[in-house]
Amino acid sequence: MEFTPKKRFFTFIRNLQNEICEALESFEPHEKFIEDRWERKAGGGGWSRVLKGTTFEKAGVNVSEVYGPVPEVLKGTIPESAKDFYATGISLVIHPVNPMVPTTHANFRYFEVTDKNGEIVDQWFGGGADLTPYYLFQEDASHFHQTLKQACDKHHKDFYQEFKPWCDRYFFNSHRNEHRGIGGVFYDHLRPEEKLSGEALEAFQQEIALSFIHAYTPIVEQRIRLDYTRAQKEWQEIRRGRYVEFNLIHDRGTLFGLKTGGRIESIFMSLPPTVRWEYNHSPQEGTAEAKLIQALTTPKNWA
Amino acid sequence: MEFTPKKRFFTFIRNLQNEICEALESFEPHEKFIEDRWERKAGGGGWSRVLKGTTFEKAGVNVSEVYGPVPEVLKGTIPESAKDFYATGISLVIHPVNPMVPTTHANFRYFEVTDKNGEIVDQWFGGGADLTPYYLFQEDASHFHQTLKQACDKHHKDFYQEFKPWCDRYFFNSHRNEHRGIGGVFYDHLRPEEKLSGEALEAFQQEIALSFIHAYTPIVEQRIRLDYTRAQKEWQEIRRGRYVEFNLIHDRGTLFGLKTGGRIESIFMSLPPTVRWEYNHSPQEGTAEAKLIQALTTPKNWA
Repeated sequence: MEFTPKKRFFTFIRNLQNEICEALESFEPHEKFIEDRWERKAGGGGWSRVLKGTTFEKAGVNVSEVYGPVPEVLKGTIPESAKDFYATGISLVIHPVNPMVPTTHANFRYFEVTDKNGEIVDQWFGGGADLTPYYLFQEDASHFHQTLKQACDKHHKDFYQEFKPWCDRYFFNSHRNEHRGIGGVFYDHLRPEEKLSGEALEAFQQEIALSFIHAYTPIVEQRIRLDYTRAQKEWQEIRRGRYVEFNLIHDRGTLFGLKTGGRIESIFMSLPPTVRWEYNHSPQEGTAEAKLIQALTTPKNWA
Repeated sequence: MEFTPKKRFFTFIRNLQNEICEALESFEPHEKFIEDRWERKAGGGGWSRVLKGTTFEKAGVNVSEVYGPVPEVLKGTIPESAKDFYATGISLVIHPVNPMVPTTHANFRYFEVTDKNGEIVDQWFGGGADLTPYYLFQEDASHFHQTLKQACDKHHKDFYQEFKPWCDRYFFNSHRNEHRGIGGVFYDHLRPEEKLSGEALEAFQQEIALSFIHAYTPIVEQRIRLDYTRAQKEWQEIRRGRYVEFNLIHDRGTLFGLKTGGRIESIFMSLPPTVRWEYNHSPQEGTAEAKLIQALTTPKNWA
């Protein structure tokens, strides 16, 4: 029988959206996420949740479920017989107030294309989670990677060792020769029966998505009460500039959204709230800021 | 005899760089431009000048003169026989502190390609100047456009009426369906003997470049002492976000610089110093902020 987890996976990520939002709200004494429902003209839509709080300067947790005729921009990347597509996913970016708490991003998606008879001609899972610290705490980087690695290891021995360097390659500001953060995992086009059955892939996808909360929230817990200076806040804002550069120049997800008529405000929820570009800024040797840059230049084995 | 203004035009823009920097420094009680000299591996280099002051939060005035074998990224856009290129230009972006003072950008350049015998196979002038207000003062927009129009009109009756809409089309955030600012002039590929001789084009290029100071500085003079609130400053920072979006997503000049190994810090001098992305921000009807948005949606005849 045909494997098609569409509705099941959609239900899973809507529940996950609730769980993640609740986990983040637990760090906020007063603020709650607000939800905006949006519709896509050509089919489907989304549920965008945003929080502006005292722990999280801007947190966005989006779910979308879009479908319809294959958009022009996708042609050439999928089988010629493809007529319709279906895509559902959760995408989140969290920008904390405190520069000692890292920014994080995660995305888990399922994609399917069908031919004129409604038969599936291609389908895959994709996703990932990565961490972008402003000050590097080795134990945070290790915890984040180890948590994701454990989720990977339960499902396939190759996954972490393939998805970790894939993440390093993907979140790379080539114009600066610098990685966006200290990585995590990234994967795409995981097709049923290549390494695992459809059901086993779906189980992996659920496990890694659920592990994200455990990878990130203990780090928030650990760093949230640390003091910081105005200069450290400015350093965070300068580094957030690199985040913007990556998302607007290199990120395929952002450009895909812009080209397929996605909702601008949901796509740009990933952009940090306050950002700074200083001409020719470069941290002094030996400082914590310089150590971060070094870690972003040469990916390391954190797990 | 062959028309080749290379060294003459380069000398002109280096002098213009001095003039513009002095005009801007006259608004600063203490700060002066600092100059960074940089070299391009494959040939040539530049002189980047930056000022961080109390009137101008960030002002960058760059001159570059680059040459050498035609870079890969240019092939296909110039004659096949082209072997070497030469490009020189001045490029500036000024981000004032006070949101009542508009941001401005200008660029004036000369480009030439030669074949294996050193014969010119293509050559052109390009350039433009445009204004990006945060609060719209009709008389400022009119003054800016009229000054540029007068410079155009002295040289060719068609220039302003061609270059004004060209500017509107170019500085357009298609993903927002919104223009970057209230425009000015923009032109490219002005080749000798198409509408004017090489010498006459060069005279036009010099006149419009010189007129930029007169188009912009009286506006600074006029608005610099106006008071503003914190909310108005935040509005400026939100609008600066649109400036970043244009420069990183759409601007051919920025992407050209990144692809041809230009100096990152000189290319990104155009990015505003402090920027803000607020989720789903939209000004209330009838406010000054809403009036600006309206002017950015529908280009107007300002001259």
